[in-house]
Amino acid sequence: MAQFMDVHTSMPGVTAQALHEAHQADLAIQDDESVQFTHAWADPESGHVFCLSEGPSKEAVQRIHERAGHPYDEIHEITVTA
Amino acid sequence: MAQFMDVHTSMPGVTAQALHEAHQADLAIQDDESVQFTHAWADPESGHVFCLSEGPSKEAVQRIHERAGHPYDEIHEITVTA
Repeated sequence: MAQFMDVHTSMPGVTAQALHEAHQADLAIQDDESVQFTHAWADPESGHVFCLSEGPSKEAVQRIHERAGHPYDEIHEITVTA
Repeated sequence: MAQFMDVHTSMPGVTAQALHEAHQADLAIQDDESVQFTHAWADPESGHVFCLSEGPSKEAVQRIHERAGHPYDEIHEITVTA
């Protein structure tokens, strides 16, 4: 499976509750696309949210995010880590 | 300690070796500013690198990155996770 970091740039003021609900919405349907969201980090001040996931493709990640109501603004395939 | 996600946008073609060396350069001096870099994820195709860290301030993180030769292009304070 490939690894991805996707970025949402339009969630200013996102609360712990809102992020939890958004993440749960992804987890509830992620198996439909063999995607696994592992972590989400949010900066409510700038509205940026970074989501780390594994899955078959960028498109599969986006389909889950779209169905859950929060498409990403940007996605990067992570092929090198440290 | 606060948590940060900083983003470098100008490392196209970054290799595993290059990222490892950059990360080690940070680790070697991070104690000077009480910063702790915990993980780095890179997309060599777009040149984006995402660095997760903990530390006293955004400025402290940037000072370490600058001294190590790779200032960030963007930084976000992470106050909500899931």
